[in-house]
This record gives sequence, C-alpha cells and structure tokens, in this order.
Amino acid sequence: MKRIMMNGMMRGAFLFLLVFGQAYAQTDPLPSWNDGPAKKAIIEFVKVTTDKGGPKFVPPEARIAAFDQDGTTWVEQPMYTQIVYCLERVPVVVKAKPDLKNIEPFKTVLSGNREAMAKFTMPDLYMILAATLSGMTIEEFQAEATKWLDTARDPRWKRPYTELTYQPMQEVLKYLRANGYRTYIVTGGGQDFVRLYSDRVYGIPPEQVVGTAGGTKYRYAKDGKPYLLKEPKMLLNDNDAGKPEGIHLMIGRRPYAAFGNSIGDKQMLEYTQAGDGARLMMLVHHDDDKREYAYGPAQGLPNTRVGTFTQALYDEAKKKGWTVISMKNDWKTIFSFDK
Amino acid sequence: MKRIMMNGMMRGAFLFLLVFGQAYAQTDPLPSWNDGPAKKAIIEFVKVTTDKGGPKFVPPEARIAAFDQDGTTWVEQPMYTQIVYCLERVPVVVKAKPDLKNIEPFKTVLSGNREAMAKFTMPDLYMILAATLSGMTIEEFQAEATKWLDTARDPRWKRPYTELTYQPMQEVLKYLRANGYRTYIVTGGGQDFVRLYSDRVYGIPPEQVVGTAGGTKYRYAKDGKPYLLKEPKMLLNDNDAGKPEGIHLMIGRRPYAAFGNSIGDKQMLEYTQAGDGARLMMLVHHDDDKREYAYGPAQGLPNTRVGTFTQALYDEAKKKGWTVISMKNDWKTIFSFDK
Repeated sequence: MKRIMMNGMMRGAFLFLLVFGQAYAQTDPLPSWNDGPAKKAIIEFVKVTTDKGGPKFVPPEARIAAFDQDGTTWVEQPMYTQIVYCLERVPVVVKAKPDLKNIEPFKTVLSGNREAMAKFTMPDLYMILAATLSGMTIEEFQAEATKWLDTARDPRWKRPYTELTYQPMQEVLKYLRANGYRTYIVTGGGQDFVRLYSDRVYGIPPEQVVGTAGGTKYRYAKDGKPYLLKEPKMLLNDNDAGKPEGIHLMIGRRPYAAFGNSIGDKQMLEYTQAGDGARLMMLVHHDDDKREYAYGPAQGLPNTRVGTFTQALYDEAKKKGWTVISMKNDWKTIFSFDK
Repeated sequence: MKRIMMNGMMRGAFLFLLVFGQAYAQTDPLPSWNDGPAKKAIIEFVKVTTDKGGPKFVPPEARIAAFDQDGTTWVEQPMYTQIVYCLERVPVVVKAKPDLKNIEPFKTVLSGNREAMAKFTMPDLYMILAATLSGMTIEEFQAEATKWLDTARDPRWKRPYTELTYQPMQEVLKYLRANGYRTYIVTGGGQDFVRLYSDRVYGIPPEQVVGTAGGTKYRYAKDGKPYLLKEPKMLLNDNDAGKPEGIHLMIGRRPYAAFGNSIGDKQMLEYTQAGDGARLMMLVHHDDDKREYAYGPAQGLPNTRVGTFTQALYDEAKKKGWTVISMKNDWKTIFSFDK
C-alpha cells in the first residue's frame, strides 16, 4: 500500500514537472512570424480571450476559429487543387460516358489546352465538378481522391499539394488549439475532398470541415447493404454569404476568429466581427512573388477568378480594423520545407 | 525549491488518488437500467470498442454515437414538443399577417380544436413550420423559443418539456462520453430549436446537433450590421434516409452506435450497422402505458404519425440483431424526478 502510494506521488511529481515545465518553457508560439502588427494582433487576441476574469474572456466552449483554405492555409495558384483533381478525372468520366467527348467544356479539358481552361466560366466549372464528383459512392470517391492526393504533384514545387500549406498558419492553428480554440476549415472547396486530409495536414478532424457540399442519396446495393451515392446537387455553396450560412448550419456558433484571403471570405469576416467582445479578423495578402505568388490589389494574375483580393476588400479591411497579413513582410518562412 | 517540489508531489498524490480512486469507485454506470439484454449490449459494446489491443478496438477520434431525440431521449407524445411550440406561435404570426386567419391550416389552429389538429397532413404541418420558424433573425428565434421553453409545461406531467428526458438514456449519454465517445443528437426535429437546450439538457454542444434544417439568408441591417434571416426553405430533412445523409454532411463519419425509436430511424441504424467492427443499434419500444405511453407494434395511439414503430421495423430489428429496449422491463426509472 505504502509502495503504491509512493509510486503515485512520484508519478504526480513527474506530471507536475511536465505540466508546469511546459508552461515555463513556452517561448514564441509563432516562430515563423516576423514581429509586426499581424503577429501582435494574434497574440493579443489569444491573451485577452483566455484571460479568466478579464473583460474579454471567452468560455472554452465558445472558442471557435474559422479558416478559409485555398490561399489562406495553402497555395491556391495557379488553380485550386480540387479543380486540378476534377480536370484530371475528366478522361475517366468520358471513358464511361463517351458522349461527353464532343461537348464543352469536356472537349476543351481533353484537348489539354490550359490557357483555354483558365477561361472557363463558373457554369463550365460546375459542369465539370458535377460530372467528376458525383455518381459514385462516398467510399469510391474517397479511394480515388486519396490515390490522386498521394501521387499528384504541384507543377512549381514538385511536391504533393498537401505539403504546400503555410507554416505560419499551421502555427496559428496549433497556437489557437493550445489555447482551447476549436479550429474549423470553412472553405469554398469540396467538403468531402478536404475532409480526406484535414486531420493529417491541419490537425482538423473531418467533422470540423465546413465546405461546399453536394447532396447524397441513400441507396441499397443488391446484397441489401446501404450506401450513400454522391449526387450532382448542391446543398451548400460555401462561398461569400454561403460561409456565414454554412457556419450557422454546421457549427451553430459565431466564430471569434476568422481568417481568409479573398472576396469570398468577406461575409465570414463581417459575420465574425458582428459578435460581441474581442474578435480577430485577418486576410492573407499574397504580395510575395518570389517565395509564393503576388496577386493582391493592384497586382493581379491572369486568372483573377482564383483568390480575388480587390482594392475594395482592402479598403473595407482597413476601415473595419481587420488585419491584413503581408506574406512578404509578416512571414519569416512560407513552407515547412523552406529552411 | 524543495518546498515547491514537495508541494508538487502532494498535488500529484492528490491527482493520483482522484484519478485512480474514481476508477476503483466505478460501480454501475447504468443504475436506472434493469439487468437484461439491453443493458448488457451497451456495456459489452463499450467494453470491446475501448479495449486497446482487442480486435474490436475503435480509436477515440472515430467514437461517434448518434441519438434520435423525440421518443428516444425524451417524450414525444401526444405531440412533438417543437410542433406544440409552432402551434402556440400561430396567433403571433397571424397578428402580423392577418390574411392567414381564414386560410387552412391556420384557421384550425386558431380554433383550438386539438382533435382536428391531430389530423393535420404533412403539408399542413410544413406550412405551419414554415410560417412560424422563418422570417426572423436567428437571434429573434432564439430569444422567443427560449422564452417559450422556460414557461411552457407538458400537459401530463406539468413540467417544462426539457425535464421530460429519459434518465436511462441520460446515463447512456454520460457513459459513452466517459468512454471517449462523442454523442450527437440526430433528430427529425429542428436543428436551431434543439441546439437551444442540447448542452443544458443532454450535455451535447450545439455543433453536435444534426437536425432538420431550414436555410438562412445573409442580410445587412440599416446600420450595416449583418445578420442571418431564417428562410422558409428546407436544407436538410433529417428523417428516414435524411438521417444518414445528414450524418455524412454534418459529421462525415459513420457512427458506431445509434439509438432510435421509430421508422424514421431505420436508415440511420442500417447505415450504422453497415460499418465494420462492433456496432450498437438500439430501438426504444414504448410499451409502458403506466409510467409513460404505449404505442409500439400492435398497440398504437390515435396519432400514429408520432414515433411510428411498426411490426415490420420490429421484425427487421430482430432479424438484424438490433436491440429493442423495453421501457417497461429494461428501465428501472423513467424520469429523474420519478423517485
């Protein structure tokens, strides 16, 4: 009995040292950030919202932080990763439905003319998304997309797309979580697609991914086993006003922090700010053509459909006190493999 | 230094006693259940899915349990609580839109004829739900419904509806959570409605409520402040096949355990069972007209629209190895106020 007790006490001492040691050892939670207003805003926000007894304290259960993905937590140029996936899947779809071969936009995709593809309209893209992301079971989609993610490489860095996440934003995700925040991806990208890697890549479990979502249909196989079939039907368009709407549907709480990089994130940031107390609204400004890309206000890339950060959005940010993150000046490192 | 160390060790010993003491003190996790196949099935399921190294171990992140609400975790007779709320709100809506006064089904609601109301068709009910649950902001809805929940009383027990939860199911919720399961409500009831009290009543946070959901529209007030307006548009009908579809949309993982009580839960249980490994499927059978109600197979209440448990469902359960919970035989206590 006495021995067990001593054992427990030693265990306790060890636990004590571990917990308190960590608290004392806490150095810079955001080492890939240069000192400046952006880094300061994040640290100040965490400090005041976790200061028990302080006027801006947020109870742990309400600590929600929302992150756009494309252009905010990973590279979105020259084309959204999921669009690349869909375009590369078109030949498989055409093989199953040969009639599509001579119909636009599939004809252009098969031609391989990237310049023409960059000019696709939204209806063109929706046709491609509907054709390539539906008509299979959830499990079939998961298997195919996982295989693609494992083998596809970004043309510029020659790495898996899932390695092209921004190291500074990875640090923010971890820092917020270490302070009791639940981090959510709130993306215009496909919910089923992002959920495949969100845990591995961001430490965000699938149930904390809010994305553009197609419907599914519950069906029975011949052996009676049920399955969900992906339908070419949009349930949630998680862009623009769809972001706050999607947040309400999927989370039911207003975020205290929101991170975006384009006009598609504007409403999410406004909605976040409209709550009481301390709120953190941040926009990543892509102004670093050496280390990544530059396509912010007054810069522009040929394909402005991706991640449009207009002068009007910049002005709104300044007026409303949102923090604009300069990749060039605020980020010491862009990728984890940069060093 | 030495003193701090001793302090730490004493703290440690205290923590040790707390943690291990609790483990030793663990007696019956389900005291309101009589011994029998239902109680045994729950305990066996938890045991095998949390047995690290065992063949049926489920990693903590995948431990999802889904609970229907009406008739499964609380009373649904003689009418779903939310329908009562909507019916009682009709006069307010008619005051704002007097034209509705002479139109069915509003005319019948205003007449107060409960018997006629019990015969409402689904389209009738949808008209009432659409009229009473939309056209206001989320915050307006929350304030009104909260006020109602605080004051409304069930006609039989003369208590707030939120007290009419089943004590045995409350124990299952806690028992599963104590074993690393995340518990979700997956209800045909309104998501916005159930989220108002889910944390207080079930210990389930709003983001773990999947329910029938109407759309919202992002709008700006005159002062520029944004808000979400509840729309009379169905986004997710979380009944029947809508339950597995809703689970995929909102959680993105297949549950390991699912609890229901009616044909509206059939597909959720099938979908749960279709996964690998150990799965727990349970149906509450209302066969206790003394302590609650009896409306299972071959019993029937006049209003069979509520919680229909057909003979066919009973047969499917038996055939597939789902566990039918007899309220009469399996539950020692029904309500926490019963003793």
